[in-house]
Amino acid sequence: MRFCRVEIDGRAVWGRVEGDFADGGTVLPLGGSPLADVPTAAGRPIPLASAVLLPPVVPPVFYAVGLNYKGHIEHALAKGYAAADAPTRPEVAYRANNALTGHRSPIVKPAGVEGRFEAEGEVVAVIGRTLRRATYAEAQESVFGWTIGNDVSARAWQHADRSFWRSKNSDTFKPMGPWIETDVDPLVQTTTMRVDGEPRAAFPTGAMIFDPYEYIVETTKYITMRPGDVLWMGADGTCQIEPGQVIDIEISGIGTLSNPVHAEEEERHPR
Amino acid sequence: MRFCRVEIDGRAVWGRVEGDFADGGTVLPLGGSPLADVPTAAGRPIPLASAVLLPPVVPPVFYAVGLNYKGHIEHALAKGYAAADAPTRPEVAYRANNALTGHRSPIVKPAGVEGRFEAEGEVVAVIGRTLRRATYAEAQESVFGWTIGNDVSARAWQHADRSFWRSKNSDTFKPMGPWIETDVDPLVQTTTMRVDGEPRAAFPTGAMIFDPYEYIVETTKYITMRPGDVLWMGADGTCQIEPGQVIDIEISGIGTLSNPVHAEEEERHPR
Repeated sequence: MRFCRVEIDGRAVWGRVEGDFADGGTVLPLGGSPLADVPTAAGRPIPLASAVLLPPVVPPVFYAVGLNYKGHIEHALAKGYAAADAPTRPEVAYRANNALTGHRSPIVKPAGVEGRFEAEGEVVAVIGRTLRRATYAEAQESVFGWTIGNDVSARAWQHADRSFWRSKNSDTFKPMGPWIETDVDPLVQTTTMRVDGEPRAAFPTGAMIFDPYEYIVETTKYITMRPGDVLWMGADGTCQIEPGQVIDIEISGIGTLSNPVHAEEEERHPR
Repeated sequence: MRFCRVEIDGRAVWGRVEGDFADGGTVLPLGGSPLADVPTAAGRPIPLASAVLLPPVVPPVFYAVGLNYKGHIEHALAKGYAAADAPTRPEVAYRANNALTGHRSPIVKPAGVEGRFEAEGEVVAVIGRTLRRATYAEAQESVFGWTIGNDVSARAWQHADRSFWRSKNSDTFKPMGPWIETDVDPLVQTTTMRVDGEPRAAFPTGAMIFDPYEYIVETTKYITMRPGDVLWMGADGTCQIEPGQVIDIEISGIGTLSNPVHAEEEERHPR
């Protein structure tokens, strides 16, 4: 099944998606969260085409994997990023909720960003239960479903700053969506990145150095993971994006996350 | 005023604190969040002495400042931590909500931790309103109140790992509390750390390289801060802690955050 969150009358409501954008699909509003219970219908279906899709979950903790594909590490090394040696253990890092934005919502390029401004398409595990010291089998059972993330980065800031605070966590830098697909094996899919409809990168989603379940096993040796936590799994490919373009991340079996890129207009924020 | 969160019948409830532990103080349960509105009383007062105090807020984003006192940087350099040069800009980093725990709740030292296991007492700003591109004056007005954090670190992991994931974010490594004090200027206070009642470190809370408002101004150039976000301000002093001890962080004008240290007992988690 596909679950999403939609904005209805200014409120965030969970919904069940029937069909897809292309085939006149709908969103059935739900009376609760599918992460907490089995929610019932609570409203009439609304057309997917006009639904305002929010990030499908706001996580208690936003986990993200950095370098997790060999090709991406070679790319980073070629660009002179010294710390890009391949990981020998599955070690998570973090992103921040302020940066989340939904399907079709703009990625805003800050006025001060120079140089490479890049998108990376990632598969995202949404945790469905409370987990500590999980076995591999428990980790497999713990994932509620899968969504798509776009890990937008301002590379000059990434290299100049002490942390990833603004390079990866500026507002709108973490589109996520369009929905959570519960019935898919992400490790046999293909991730494709397109700019204005033109393919820029494609890679086997499952060609990871460590898979999502290995990350969950290692993380929960020390850390309790909880329902709604998300784990972004890294990318094997980047593409440059510019204001005026539309960036699509498609993962077969899940869907397509699409976001226009806007320029920050200083005059909108006079001070 | 002092606001806290208490556990009542398994639920987290906001409360208003009257008095202190030493003088027979009480917690008045509230019907909502003081961050959202002006909540009214919703229950009979309970004795502070027996109240189960939770972390006073679970933040949407958990911001933390690393090196923010000159003495702490000199300490880190002396210990051979190469990246400990003084910051020239107020750049935030992050911690994770799973690590939060409340006043009087144990800090659990994981079985695998060797070497230095250290506490650091920090003043914490609790953000009270939505902020973007804040001026210094707006940043000052935006802080709802102040609480106390203990930034526990396993130093060997901090140096060996790619991120701070388990060195600073293992479960129970981020005690916060006991409450939020709304009527205090944290920059003229003293932070004191005690182990089993014996003073180990003390420093002027306000002797920061960049103050909380400078951090808010810089962060909100790129990032929207929201009610309930917390900003941990760093420490100028650490102390070694061991299982069996009790670590107290006192900040004058706010209160004392006290936590026992336990050893992880592997047999509690049979597998």
